[in-house]
Amino acid sequence: MVEYQANILDRVFAAVADPTRRAILASLARKPATVTEIARPFPVSLNAISKHILVLERAGLIRREVVGREHHCSLDPAPLRKASAWIAHYRNFWNVRLDALERHVIARKKRAERMHGRSDRRDE
Amino acid sequence: MVEYQANILDRVFAAVADPTRRAILASLARKPATVTEIARPFPVSLNAISKHILVLERAGLIRREVVGREHHCSLDPAPLRKASAWIAHYRNFWNVRLDALERHVIARKKRAERMHGRSDRRDE
Repeated sequence: MVEYQANILDRVFAAVADPTRRAILASLARKPATVTEIARPFPVSLNAISKHILVLERAGLIRREVVGREHHCSLDPAPLRKASAWIAHYRNFWNVRLDALERHVIARKKRAERMHGRSDRRDE
Repeated sequence: MVEYQANILDRVFAAVADPTRRAILASLARKPATVTEIARPFPVSLNAISKHILVLERAGLIRREVVGREHHCSLDPAPLRKASAWIAHYRNFWNVRLDALERHVIARKKRAERMHGRSDRRDE
């Protein structure tokens, strides 16, 4: 089960590590489309886009329905949920970092104010 | 700026697409460690782990401090925040999908109840 999850995460993260594939997902989030329609705005060959779609399909991010000669693709966001859950484990960690940063900034500000206070007294 | 973000996302997603690299991050989330300490539990060479650490470092997920001959590594979760923000754009989408699924299940249940009601009448 853990291995199965790992496999999904490997494929999902590898799939979204490419800007063209992320753009394809963004386009399908707006509306489902055929492979030809998906490929239209990209300055690369239909073959290159087909390969990208295959990677997204294997990651479970795209569903494909073949109607006659047309391949209709739609977004399946479910695997992104798993990716999000994995990242969520680190959310506390970056919040702690932000808290530490905030404390650091406040401490620095107080130190600066104390220093400033002292130099004021020296000026008197 | 958009290109810079894309570059970060490419590197972060590619970095976390590997189970060993995800395990290294999990270990550093528990506590900072030297490269040798990080490598110890893994059944691969120190050289292989060093390469994984380099990939994580280039993605901005690990900070390395060289003290004498030791390389101290700590987790930097900030880039994961960007990855999480990218995925968050799809959160509404999977919620909509879940709502649709829920509606579908309720509709099916009601249909089944109606069918059952009819067959009950037939049985009377």
